[in-house]
Amino acid sequence: MTKAIGYGVTSATAPLAPITFERRALRPDDVAIDIAYCGVCHSDAHQAHNDWGNTVYPCVPGHEIVGHVTAIGSSVKKFKVGDTVAVGCLVDSCMECAACHDGYEQGCEKGPVATYNGKDRHTGEITYGGYSNHIVVRDHFVCRVPEKLDIRYAAPLLCAGITCWTPLRQWNVGKGSKVGVVGLGGLGHMGVKLAAALGAEVTMITTTASKGEDARKLGARHVLLSTDQKAMAAAMNSFDFILNTIPVKHNANPYLMLLGRKGVMVIVGALEPLEPIHGGLLMRNTRAVAGSAIGGLPDTQELLDFCAEHNILPECEMISMQDINKAYERMEHNDVKYRFVIDMASLKA
Amino acid sequence: MTKAIGYGVTSATAPLAPITFERRALRPDDVAIDIAYCGVCHSDAHQAHNDWGNTVYPCVPGHEIVGHVTAIGSSVKKFKVGDTVAVGCLVDSCMECAACHDGYEQGCEKGPVATYNGKDRHTGEITYGGYSNHIVVRDHFVCRVPEKLDIRYAAPLLCAGITCWTPLRQWNVGKGSKVGVVGLGGLGHMGVKLAAALGAEVTMITTTASKGEDARKLGARHVLLSTDQKAMAAAMNSFDFILNTIPVKHNANPYLMLLGRKGVMVIVGALEPLEPIHGGLLMRNTRAVAGSAIGGLPDTQELLDFCAEHNILPECEMISMQDINKAYERMEHNDVKYRFVIDMASLKA
Repeated sequence: MTKAIGYGVTSATAPLAPITFERRALRPDDVAIDIAYCGVCHSDAHQAHNDWGNTVYPCVPGHEIVGHVTAIGSSVKKFKVGDTVAVGCLVDSCMECAACHDGYEQGCEKGPVATYNGKDRHTGEITYGGYSNHIVVRDHFVCRVPEKLDIRYAAPLLCAGITCWTPLRQWNVGKGSKVGVVGLGGLGHMGVKLAAALGAEVTMITTTASKGEDARKLGARHVLLSTDQKAMAAAMNSFDFILNTIPVKHNANPYLMLLGRKGVMVIVGALEPLEPIHGGLLMRNTRAVAGSAIGGLPDTQELLDFCAEHNILPECEMISMQDINKAYERMEHNDVKYRFVIDMASLKA
Repeated sequence: MTKAIGYGVTSATAPLAPITFERRALRPDDVAIDIAYCGVCHSDAHQAHNDWGNTVYPCVPGHEIVGHVTAIGSSVKKFKVGDTVAVGCLVDSCMECAACHDGYEQGCEKGPVATYNGKDRHTGEITYGGYSNHIVVRDHFVCRVPEKLDIRYAAPLLCAGITCWTPLRQWNVGKGSKVGVVGLGGLGHMGVKLAAALGAEVTMITTTASKGEDARKLGARHVLLSTDQKAMAAAMNSFDFILNTIPVKHNANPYLMLLGRKGVMVIVGALEPLEPIHGGLLMRNTRAVAGSAIGGLPDTQELLDFCAEHNILPECEMISMQDINKAYERMEHNDVKYRFVIDMASLKA
């Protein structure tokens, strides 16, 4: 066992504060990682505040992790000490079911183990995440960070990035695709960058003109103001794919109408019931509304490799671990472009 | 011009009654058809009663038409007098847009022309449907009825059949697919037959045990009672594809939960807003809800050929034209297994 230090919460109303805890001794297939950077995902705040009613305290959030290997278990072949690696939202799964076999570990039939607030498959202990100096993770759930990728900015790829990447790949977005991205936050800004890098013609669909201009800098070719009825009518039936990153209940029908023949809108943000979707809008143009959640390990590695090759990096605002409560507050007010990343060197300060 | 006789309505509250009207003189690409049989679709009643607010009176319904060619226009190459042919929900489209080029004439960008209550692209006159002894249709919108197909039962393929066929094909249902069919009416019974003939393992999903038994006779391997919470829970995540033929607003979430990884539910009945769909259910298993409406001409011909080859025929109750008002009443009470077909010989009686 190794003593780890980090930041965690002890109740739904407590602020994040320093915490000391144990990381498990290495199992044969484990990799020990010194964490260099950890991204701050909106779900970290939800989990810390017990918004989903399932938080076990103390809770150490963080599932956008990059760092360096400090030790490996006896059977680990894929990594060696010193390697730059990354860990996302998953740290274990059964590895035996069809989903795991297909590299869709997030859908493990026995339930995957979340990076924090998950339950260790062997001991039943609660997992602690990346707001910490150190983590121990089963090798299959560790990705290689290509040398070309600037590790200071790579962390948000592990959740915000892969959440957008999985549906873009599933629905074959590429050269010639007309893609709309709805919502410009941590997810949306990666959606714009990744879709553009895949060769798609990207339109930012937003209520806010200034966000449109921001999206252009990230790679959007067009801006469509969803409050502009004329522009929305003119854009009807014109999109192949819409990435809908709105994180709350909303009326998706106006976006549905934008889809052309066999067009697909993928929901990656709203975990709750949507406003009633109109069956007739689905039938017209044989449209579809799909969902997608994070991604499997092969896709995550593919994303990291793609981003290295195409020099795609999330837009990050670097913070110290000590700034985390302030960062949560600002995140609550959408005051971040587009992802906070904790520099773990600050933990030792 | 040719005098035609048939049955139509003159107001939203009038019963169907004998009507005489003109069919246009043949254009060069027209085919004149003596109608032998015409299926009775639920939308015929909706249109007759102006349920959608767009009915122009007099209205002669009917878009499941089979008959024989009696004359052809000067440029028609595909058909000759005496051929057995079929006409579905469409009688014209622009034939120039991308949708038409792709055989998706139902999505013609300039608007396809419906078989009845449509507007002729040349004269602007209202189209009259198949409750009639005779019809004139542009050759592209006429399908060949294979010799092996019993024309007495073929008519419902032209709407009920193709409405199910299009999504089954779009989503690659075939050998090994686990398919659920929700609702056992004109559409649902064709969904069961066609999915089974494509090699899928079909489950009838219904609230009514007796319908389940009926579905077994049509080719369903299993029955799932949607009122049986335990059975529904046990079937979670197990379907690849669900054909949802429920024709009214409903809660589709319990069916969504049945879909496995990348499973798709296609709505072919409910033209109205569905109950709120849960975003989290879509994200889990990367499920999708799609829509589909009738089908294009290439798909319709493919369906007729497939049904001839596999000896698939709708279950029909033959009626006389004079029985149509009674048939509408019975249809309103779901008292039909599974489609009324009008024998047009009765018109001359």
